[in-house]
Amino acid sequence: MTRDEKIRQLELTIDEFYRQKQISPDLTEAILYSLQAGGKRLRPLLLLELIEGFGLELTRAHYQAAAALEMIHTGSLIHDDLPAMDNDDYRRGRLTSHKKFGEDMAILAGDSLFLDPYGLLAKAELPSQVKVDLIAELSQAAGTFGMVAGQVLDMQGEGRDSSLEELKRIHANKTGKLLTYPFVAAALIAGAEPLIQDKLRRIGQLLGLAFQVRDDLLDVTASFEELGKTPQKDLAAAKSTYPALLGLEEAAAFFNDCLDQAAVLLTDVERSAVFSGTEIKKIIEGLRLNG
Amino acid sequence: MTRDEKIRQLELTIDEFYRQKQISPDLTEAILYSLQAGGKRLRPLLLLELIEGFGLELTRAHYQAAAALEMIHTGSLIHDDLPAMDNDDYRRGRLTSHKKFGEDMAILAGDSLFLDPYGLLAKAELPSQVKVDLIAELSQAAGTFGMVAGQVLDMQGEGRDSSLEELKRIHANKTGKLLTYPFVAAALIAGAEPLIQDKLRRIGQLLGLAFQVRDDLLDVTASFEELGKTPQKDLAAAKSTYPALLGLEEAAAFFNDCLDQAAVLLTDVERSAVFSGTEIKKIIEGLRLNG
Repeated sequence: MTRDEKIRQLELTIDEFYRQKQISPDLTEAILYSLQAGGKRLRPLLLLELIEGFGLELTRAHYQAAAALEMIHTGSLIHDDLPAMDNDDYRRGRLTSHKKFGEDMAILAGDSLFLDPYGLLAKAELPSQVKVDLIAELSQAAGTFGMVAGQVLDMQGEGRDSSLEELKRIHANKTGKLLTYPFVAAALIAGAEPLIQDKLRRIGQLLGLAFQVRDDLLDVTASFEELGKTPQKDLAAAKSTYPALLGLEEAAAFFNDCLDQAAVLLTDVERSAVFSGTEIKKIIEGLRLNG
Repeated sequence: MTRDEKIRQLELTIDEFYRQKQISPDLTEAILYSLQAGGKRLRPLLLLELIEGFGLELTRAHYQAAAALEMIHTGSLIHDDLPAMDNDDYRRGRLTSHKKFGEDMAILAGDSLFLDPYGLLAKAELPSQVKVDLIAELSQAAGTFGMVAGQVLDMQGEGRDSSLEELKRIHANKTGKLLTYPFVAAALIAGAEPLIQDKLRRIGQLLGLAFQVRDDLLDVTASFEELGKTPQKDLAAAKSTYPALLGLEEAAAFFNDCLDQAAVLLTDVERSAVFSGTEIKKIIEGLRLNG
């Protein structure tokens, strides 16, 4: 199945979940507006490719696990864009949720996207123990011990200088943990040994770091059309970024180094488990910046 | 164990969870500020009393299940109070989260309280299948198929007249489903038969309805000191309420009738299962309004 077909199947899975029984059609509409805004679907695609990398055939349950992850990611984007947070009017080239539906609805749509995915996971056709492990891992990656804490640290870093170590800590939590989740989740689903799971987690962490450096680099160099949102927001918010701390060139080198390390570790996993990292390597190469 | 001792144990369980490893101490502080604001702890107490009603001795896992429920309830209160929602400055006699910590932190504290409890549940010492069922039920009660949808319906009901049926539908979701959860969860934990689970669910629904009517009645009749928050908010928001639709007297009669029906059903459950509803009946009687 091509990557586009996987994305299509993912979107059908999300749609099916939200259309099963509607209590408030307006809430469903607001939720699906953001879920269907496109985007690269990086997190769910990583999960699906990793599961296939372990030689498993993708099932409905795997798509549900991928959907759950994308739902939490989307909920965090909706809340990040709120006036009291980043106050963004556009996301992926479309009006943000609060601009389209009002602030109250955007808060509630985000809330739903945090509360719903666990139920979706809990009902997936997977062994109960695997589901419990997936849920524990996702919850820790997303909440007070992961993404949300990273957002608080990030928010508090605005208007003052952060060190490189502080910056890494912010992003390891804010974006890193949810990007690491597919690697751990695939290992749990495939029943991989703890050692393999640890290596995959490390790859996810490197990728998460790379992804944030990439975001910072693009914020400096890309236009509204390329980003689909307002560029140079970091500068306006007086936030420390990798380019600001390291310089543009060294930040780009650091970014490439993270991706290289991840690729080496992937080859290492291929040697010690029944696993093919070919598609993941393609995704990693797709993240490289031109020029 | 007395009810106060149970509340104390519940609060210790919550504290232990949030102090295990802190990434952002400020986030933890904001979360615990709202979790430790007191309140009746009705939902977790119902769960604990129901579990004991089935003859089980309370374990750490039961307290964790009760804490998970209280966390979601508290998260919803924080977001309900936001300026874009009900815009309340006080809750339980203290400043609301956004008044104390700022709107951005209040949004994120609420987000954490939606994302964390599933991980807490997933790690509790209970059989995996029971945990999966508890998580599925809690997620459905809280998100798009429960509480959040009810909040949207409620929000949309402001400034216009709702029928009694619409009002019931709003509250069955907004407050009813999370109040019903302890009844279903206790049945799942005790491994009760489906028929018993259904009856307990019905009791929860009646209690949820009663609780909302009670809230509406208090909004009309109580003072700031009695409520710990601004009274007559419903009137100001031009919301349909049970007293507005039924008159004060008939609303009070309807409220008592819900509680009576719940008590009768409890006696019915006592006849058909190894279950004692004594403590639950006490809680129900404690909800009655004087005069």
